[in-house]
Amino acid sequence: MNASVLPLDLSRLRAARALIGNSVVRTVQPHSEPLSEAIGASLHLKLENLQRTGSFKLRGATHKIARLLQGGGRPSGVIAVSAGNHAQGVARAARQTGLRAVVVMPRNAPLTKVESCRALGAEVVLHGEVLEQAAEEAHRLAQDQGLAFLHPYDDWDVIAGQASCGLEMLEDAPDMSVAVVPIGGGGLIAGVALALKLQNPAIRIIGVQSDAVAPFRHFLHDGELDAVPPTSHTIADGIKVKSPGLLTRQVIARHVDEIVTVDDNAIAEAIVTLLERTRTIGEGAGVVGLAALLQGRIRVAPTDRVVCVISGGNVDMTVVGRSIDYGLASSGRLMSVSVTTPDTPGRLVSLLKTVAELGINVRHVEHRRGELHVPVGMTEVILQMETRDFDHQRELLDHFAAEGLEVRNLLWV
Amino acid sequence: MNASVLPLDLSRLRAARALIGNSVVRTVQPHSEPLSEAIGASLHLKLENLQRTGSFKLRGATHKIARLLQGGGRPSGVIAVSAGNHAQGVARAARQTGLRAVVVMPRNAPLTKVESCRALGAEVVLHGEVLEQAAEEAHRLAQDQGLAFLHPYDDWDVIAGQASCGLEMLEDAPDMSVAVVPIGGGGLIAGVALALKLQNPAIRIIGVQSDAVAPFRHFLHDGELDAVPPTSHTIADGIKVKSPGLLTRQVIARHVDEIVTVDDNAIAEAIVTLLERTRTIGEGAGVVGLAALLQGRIRVAPTDRVVCVISGGNVDMTVVGRSIDYGLASSGRLMSVSVTTPDTPGRLVSLLKTVAELGINVRHVEHRRGELHVPVGMTEVILQMETRDFDHQRELLDHFAAEGLEVRNLLWV
Repeated sequence: MNASVLPLDLSRLRAARALIGNSVVRTVQPHSEPLSEAIGASLHLKLENLQRTGSFKLRGATHKIARLLQGGGRPSGVIAVSAGNHAQGVARAARQTGLRAVVVMPRNAPLTKVESCRALGAEVVLHGEVLEQAAEEAHRLAQDQGLAFLHPYDDWDVIAGQASCGLEMLEDAPDMSVAVVPIGGGGLIAGVALALKLQNPAIRIIGVQSDAVAPFRHFLHDGELDAVPPTSHTIADGIKVKSPGLLTRQVIARHVDEIVTVDDNAIAEAIVTLLERTRTIGEGAGVVGLAALLQGRIRVAPTDRVVCVISGGNVDMTVVGRSIDYGLASSGRLMSVSVTTPDTPGRLVSLLKTVAELGINVRHVEHRRGELHVPVGMTEVILQMETRDFDHQRELLDHFAAEGLEVRNLLWV
Repeated sequence: MNASVLPLDLSRLRAARALIGNSVVRTVQPHSEPLSEAIGASLHLKLENLQRTGSFKLRGATHKIARLLQGGGRPSGVIAVSAGNHAQGVARAARQTGLRAVVVMPRNAPLTKVESCRALGAEVVLHGEVLEQAAEEAHRLAQDQGLAFLHPYDDWDVIAGQASCGLEMLEDAPDMSVAVVPIGGGGLIAGVALALKLQNPAIRIIGVQSDAVAPFRHFLHDGELDAVPPTSHTIADGIKVKSPGLLTRQVIARHVDEIVTVDDNAIAEAIVTLLERTRTIGEGAGVVGLAALLQGRIRVAPTDRVVCVISGGNVDMTVVGRSIDYGLASSGRLMSVSVTTPDTPGRLVSLLKTVAELGINVRHVEHRRGELHVPVGMTEVILQMETRDFDHQRELLDHFAAEGLEVRNLLWV
């Protein structure tokens, strides 16, 4: 496979970027001082979560459609299968050119995804229970109605479109030495790797997958993809791709230097860290690179200049809320305890007074009596509180101890 | 007051911007299609929440310090009073020039604010219970140690620094017809209004305050500031300024066309809308302009080109979590109900089965017996659930009704 000649050279990548033009945003790539300190090397973040439609996918879809139109024979429209970022990229890219867009999703697709595609002018067809059934329907519709089927990653025109992200990265950080990029189907990392390696082969390219869905885990060692159990789940659902592309695989084999994985907890923490440090939101799949850097999964030297792609930001708000709680708890700012006190009038008040005097904010309080594990004559109070840090939490526990109260910590993170 | 000549002309604003140079980020100003649709006019957002240190304050502080150094006699350092964005702006601006920075905060300042100032190299002095006491200490320290006191807004050099934001706004949207800007002390709106009106007097400038702290409410009508009760509270704490500046007031009187207010609920919803639409986080004070536009408080025509400043993004993560819950509830994606069922084995399972079959995610469940309002032989189940939309909620309620269950909705938003 390594011996074959890849059909994309630097001039084709530059032509792709020119063809895309202003249909995509040239996203910012800020340097982060606190995150550089945290990872021990200079770190820039390429914020594709601020791209139109919320992910890099718009780049590939826009280029693919431009190439279809360039080829003469204008198709009657385009069709895609996706319940995620590809769908929105295709919908918007098609609307820009006045082409009809059809998106097929499984029947259980989240309503927000359906709505956002419709808002971008696409026709949404709900079909089947899983993505594979939706794909069959899409191929049938493509045939019947003369629509061009747009693959989300395994297409040289799509890869060339994603490469525009890599061209921008190097322009904005000409001295970069490491690129960190999420891998799902492999379209983004293939494009970025080509854009960088064809200009400076010394740049190290690191791909990142979710622990739970990591077909590429051993790929660079033995050229084989790992099987992924069908029930595997990850909050990085945007890169939950069990069978990556054949074309993207060729580029990865040749140009990617290392592939690492991160677990869901690390991903949730990275969502919160990104939010606190850049004031932007990343989706699970979008922040795996940052998660890997923060977890020390990627070896960097103090002299390295790292650019990490935050590939998308289309995250469900409920996931944000849960990730924030997780991040608060793991940094000592959320505390849940059970306190056992004598069941006499005024004890709850005195308990809450102790809490208030330490400047601690109560988020949830529950007063329980008659639980089997609570002695008769005693009562259990569950408190969820917002604290400043772990020292603040210890201060409260010391106060409770001094008052002779029995306390159990309900959060172990 | 209107007859006086203001000391800032366009050439001074441009000189200020040149002096600031690359110490501040030229923040992006994306157009938002869904938000334009929502307000009925073209809308660009000037994302100062993505500014270094998380707010526009860096602009004024950087310019002020540059002017101090320009003046010859280099001070031994600078000092500021702030538990907010001004503190971080001063800390970073001082560090850029190698000047010592001291920041005085009240003793109860949130630890995160203290830490972020220290991380930027400032010395933090905790003094007094309220900002006024901290200010006294700062003036004493300034005298004793020969430090230059940096006012957060009432200083022509600070105003000229904030004007750089307005210069960028017009460059990126030359045909803009309306600017929407938060008002606290008035430094940002004074700078932006000067930058815009001195170039195009036809641009309407709208200031926005929080309902709870709105000294400028009637200012454009009678030139008087409204008294603000000392206990007033708002989640827009960054613009909780009860006695705005004397200099900023002169600019506002001359160049601001309209001042409107919004309440905390609208502000919380705007935080969520901004997060969903731009994937960036705004603090309460930062999003009041967007809140006013979304609430229809600002009259716009379909031909208007509106630029709204999102002035900062330094928001406590616990506030984000609470705002998201609020936004989810108000858009039908979070539901809390109490269901009364017979207290026989298997009833809770059957209830949860109904919920699961509708694809509803349970976030919290509580099973209560022996409450006084629940008849003997019955039990109450409290469910907090994540739903797709209000139709989805009605579907669940219909199922419960068909099963003969008594249900009370616990959220009224």
